[in-house]
Amino acid sequence: MNVQQWSALDADAQAQVLQRPVQAVAARTSEAVAGLIAAVRADGDVALREISLRFDGVAPASFEVGEAEFAAAEQAVSAELRQAMVDAAARIRVFHQAGMSQGYAVETAPGVRCERVVRPIGRVGLYVPAGSAPLPSTALMLGVPAQLAGCREVVLCTPPRKDGSADPAVLVAARLTGVHRVFKLGGAQAIAAMAYGTDSVPACDKLFGPGNSFVTEAKQQVARDGAAAIDMPAGPSEVLVIADAGANPAFVAADLLSQAEHGPDSQVLLLTDDAALLAQVQAQVQVQLARLSRAAIAAQALQASQLILVDSLAQAFQISNRYAPEHLILALRAPRDWLAQVEAAGSVFLGDYTPEALGDYCSGTNHVLPTAGAARAYSGVSVASFQNLISVQSATAQGIAAIGGCARTLARAEGLDAHENAVALRMEVAA
Amino acid sequence: MNVQQWSALDADAQAQVLQRPVQAVAARTSEAVAGLIAAVRADGDVALREISLRFDGVAPASFEVGEAEFAAAEQAVSAELRQAMVDAAARIRVFHQAGMSQGYAVETAPGVRCERVVRPIGRVGLYVPAGSAPLPSTALMLGVPAQLAGCREVVLCTPPRKDGSADPAVLVAARLTGVHRVFKLGGAQAIAAMAYGTDSVPACDKLFGPGNSFVTEAKQQVARDGAAAIDMPAGPSEVLVIADAGANPAFVAADLLSQAEHGPDSQVLLLTDDAALLAQVQAQVQVQLARLSRAAIAAQALQASQLILVDSLAQAFQISNRYAPEHLILALRAPRDWLAQVEAAGSVFLGDYTPEALGDYCSGTNHVLPTAGAARAYSGVSVASFQNLISVQSATAQGIAAIGGCARTLARAEGLDAHENAVALRMEVAA
Repeated sequence: MNVQQWSALDADAQAQVLQRPVQAVAARTSEAVAGLIAAVRADGDVALREISLRFDGVAPASFEVGEAEFAAAEQAVSAELRQAMVDAAARIRVFHQAGMSQGYAVETAPGVRCERVVRPIGRVGLYVPAGSAPLPSTALMLGVPAQLAGCREVVLCTPPRKDGSADPAVLVAARLTGVHRVFKLGGAQAIAAMAYGTDSVPACDKLFGPGNSFVTEAKQQVARDGAAAIDMPAGPSEVLVIADAGANPAFVAADLLSQAEHGPDSQVLLLTDDAALLAQVQAQVQVQLARLSRAAIAAQALQASQLILVDSLAQAFQISNRYAPEHLILALRAPRDWLAQVEAAGSVFLGDYTPEALGDYCSGTNHVLPTAGAARAYSGVSVASFQNLISVQSATAQGIAAIGGCARTLARAEGLDAHENAVALRMEVAA
Repeated sequence: MNVQQWSALDADAQAQVLQRPVQAVAARTSEAVAGLIAAVRADGDVALREISLRFDGVAPASFEVGEAEFAAAEQAVSAELRQAMVDAAARIRVFHQAGMSQGYAVETAPGVRCERVVRPIGRVGLYVPAGSAPLPSTALMLGVPAQLAGCREVVLCTPPRKDGSADPAVLVAARLTGVHRVFKLGGAQAIAAMAYGTDSVPACDKLFGPGNSFVTEAKQQVARDGAAAIDMPAGPSEVLVIADAGANPAFVAADLLSQAEHGPDSQVLLLTDDAALLAQVQAQVQVQLARLSRAAIAAQALQASQLILVDSLAQAFQISNRYAPEHLILALRAPRDWLAQVEAAGSVFLGDYTPEALGDYCSGTNHVLPTAGAARAYSGVSVASFQNLISVQSATAQGIAAIGGCARTLARAEGLDAHENAVALRMEVAA
């Protein structure tokens, strides 16, 4: 862990401390992904089979999960885990449903009605990774809002295990959230299949979910090609903790380690105005680290972590807004009083009893969030991510009489005769 | 204009008819844009000056519009045009304000509060083209929602005229909507400047607005690089009209021509279940075309246009949803009855007295809309496009007691010890 005193750094050094590792995709990753996508487009299921065998060491007889495998998954998952998923899904549903966009209508002039209608995106594709471990929680985070939006078809891809089966907990999560079809496909090949379609896999309008560098690069490439929209750009997971003198060092250390165990490239920052707290957190991290099964991964991430002593909490919020973290933990005595200072972050955790893990799993908020500073201009996944907002207008004869002149003046100013004519013709008839 | 009978076509021919021209950017455009962006990143204002001189034939002494030029613009714009912009802005404001996202909070378990807070994106960059004509309406369409969102700084770039000044109507529109700074910069160089910043131009978090192929390619490149978010991918403008036997052929023809005059690559489709109406529209297009100042452009676009005879209006809506047009005009006797059939479109125009031009200028809806089929998964610009939605959670000791067990079970299932530990530590203290 690197310890810094913010005010002692010059501007360049400050920028350096907040610099994320360059996320530029290696040219060879980009080329490899392009090759995989081209193969899937050209050869469909044949290519999927060959690529799966090459990368996953297995090519299931059928990519699609059938009823027997779903039934087996229900048996394989413990009652405790199933209940945890049911409970988490229920809270995710409550929070997401309460924030759903509504249609509305207003009269903007006499006889001119403008409205918004909300429609589900037709077919969506969810990606649920299973790299170091399967992530049933991600299936819940994507499945619940897709179901609330009412998408006609929800497709989910998740990598096959060595024996060709899918992770049972992911399958149970998919069924709990009404996912229509699940395919045992991982990596760039899964993204290509969902974007362009094959005989087995239907082409989807929008793709969602986290993944490794191949998955995220594939999402970028299919989005650029116009084949499918994507939820957001993705990078390694991040946490920034702002802690005051009253914070519990063991809690803060546990939160930093939660982030660090995600992967060696996870980003971990602590900002505090109390030097003693900083030192205590540092000590606690060492104590807790030793006990973790993923200690090696976490230790690697911690090498790049920053523990920063700031002059004041106000300064901490300035730094946080500049960094725009995916997760922001406010380990403060009066966290709600500071919330108004937060300008850019994915998800915020208030107070000592709200570890990030609650949001990762079951508080009700979404854990698919903007990383790498994208929180400056992107929001996390919500029901709106699965919807189209369509604007609608209707003018009566009175309506076009009221605003037609305005439209004609603007059309003339822009030199668009046919636009003016389309209005003028109606105004003559309406008059 | 190409006339088709839908049911007489096989599946391939149907796909062909709905095929948009390939929007793949020529490799040399992509390379040229990359070169321009690299130059602006390396040499800042010096590069902007050189590139502006090369492409626009002028490099203003100061890129930024000063008070004197704003004052001169107010004098140069006619009272009629100014009033039209004031009126249009007022209606755009009414419609957009009514649809603004609201924060909300719900208790998802005893002692667990989840909420959404809404924050303006800090600094946004608006691009207002001035290719064949300046587009003050676009300044209104972007400036009003940016102002409603409350963005800290709204920057606008628009190409300089030959004499080095900016279009006065665009400047008046910018001032009417509270734009903070206007720069006389066009093309890929404007996008590069707003994404990366130069001594003159501040770096923006998100870029908005239409433009030519250089502008749209530059937006894609800076978004891919993570330098700035963008509103949506962009292609040539499009209209699809669904007309019944009772439609007015002159109105329909005028709407098709409104779209066609935008540019030679504009997409124009008519779907009708009445052969007589189709023939009448065809005749009317010829009559009206002759009178247009932009007849040459429109005629070129019409060469690729499709007039399609369908078996039924229901079939027309299936085709429309598949195509997902930017603009959808329902020239029907009972258009509202059909609205529920619309699954994907940017903006919908109901009935004989609602030409697309109303939405382009002053009904109140936005005219920055998804093209090229993007309406299947993207929505038009709204206030939400200028906002971040941040989720917030707070648990009390009671709260973590209520849901901590659920989080621990899921963390264990995913093999994430540190996540479990972060929850367990709190539960011990809270108990």
